[in-house]
Amino acid sequence: MSYSSKLLEEAVQAIASLPGIGRKTSLRLALFLLKAKKEHTDRLTSALSKLRSEIAYCHCCHNIADHSLCSICANPHRDQSIICVVENIQDVLAIENTEKYRGLYHVLGGVISPVEGIGPDQLHVEPLVQRVQKMDPKEVIFALSATIEGDTTAFYITKKLKGCVARVSTIARGVAVGGELEYTDEITLGRSIAERIAYQ
Amino acid sequence: MSYSSKLLEEAVQAIASLPGIGRKTSLRLALFLLKAKKEHTDRLTSALSKLRSEIAYCHCCHNIADHSLCSICANPHRDQSIICVVENIQDVLAIENTEKYRGLYHVLGGVISPVEGIGPDQLHVEPLVQRVQKMDPKEVIFALSATIEGDTTAFYITKKLKGCVARVSTIARGVAVGGELEYTDEITLGRSIAERIAYQ
Repeated sequence: MSYSSKLLEEAVQAIASLPGIGRKTSLRLALFLLKAKKEHTDRLTSALSKLRSEIAYCHCCHNIADHSLCSICANPHRDQSIICVVENIQDVLAIENTEKYRGLYHVLGGVISPVEGIGPDQLHVEPLVQRVQKMDPKEVIFALSATIEGDTTAFYITKKLKGCVARVSTIARGVAVGGELEYTDEITLGRSIAERIAYQ
Repeated sequence: MSYSSKLLEEAVQAIASLPGIGRKTSLRLALFLLKAKKEHTDRLTSALSKLRSEIAYCHCCHNIADHSLCSICANPHRDQSIICVVENIQDVLAIENTEKYRGLYHVLGGVISPVEGIGPDQLHVEPLVQRVQKMDPKEVIFALSATIEGDTTAFYITKKLKGCVARVSTIARGVAVGGELEYTDEITLGRSIAERIAYQ
């Protein structure tokens, strides 16, 4: 598609470079910004610029933060004796959203994946080991993807943490709440039977 | 959802204010920009800022332009004797994309809609009449939406142009190319019979 304006063309190209946004959607968004008040565009561009230039990573848990310590690590009301190990920032948000966890986090930045060339050195594994040795928590919980890579990573770190922490656990795998057995895949269902929970 | 960073929260809110983008997609886009190179964000924000602050509207056809005259009006190879009247900028792009039209355009900025309180004064109708009187084109083509508002607008402008231009036409309404008669709505099909085209 050819545009009569080079400025529009550049804006459409820039928006379309975002994942999941094609040129049609991009054009629609650009024309929306053109029609909306100028403050709208200013707010968007300044929020994005500030996000990219001022964002910091918590030196303790590697979560994103506005300062060198994230709001979770800095919160004295959080349970300092539990560390939940997650893959990325989205996972922290997902767990926070459940409002069922009041401990701390540790963001690995990914999982061990030989296929993609990601080894323990590319992840924040060593800082986790040091943190556990220093903080001496009661428990480390793994909340990693239920994949071979996730399990491998949990296994690797568990071995590294041997002797440093009393309890190491992983989040439960099983039938989703509201899910029907009939439509649950056999591996999940098999695992939910093997790891069944005692009522009494 | 609560974010551990105020910067992220603001960016997510700003992106989610765009039409058709919810908070989940917005978060995904914000985290994508965080992971991508800083130049990526810089290119996006500068393209949007420039678009909003530097874009101009062609003083002749009201299409968007980088200068006071758009690239179509400024092109001496375009047929200066035909003016195609459209609702908005997207329509110009849609017609340009067909590569079947080499004349000029006139962007109205909407159609007459008493329900929405849009009268001829809110549209670029008067500049069109003046332009036709000055340019003395051979033909004016209406390419407006096939709605009552579109037809009303075409009818109103046709009356205004009486005596100024030899030929006034509208784009054909009928069965879409590739469309099956069976699934074409009856009004369209009825119109396509009434406005049938002679083979010989």
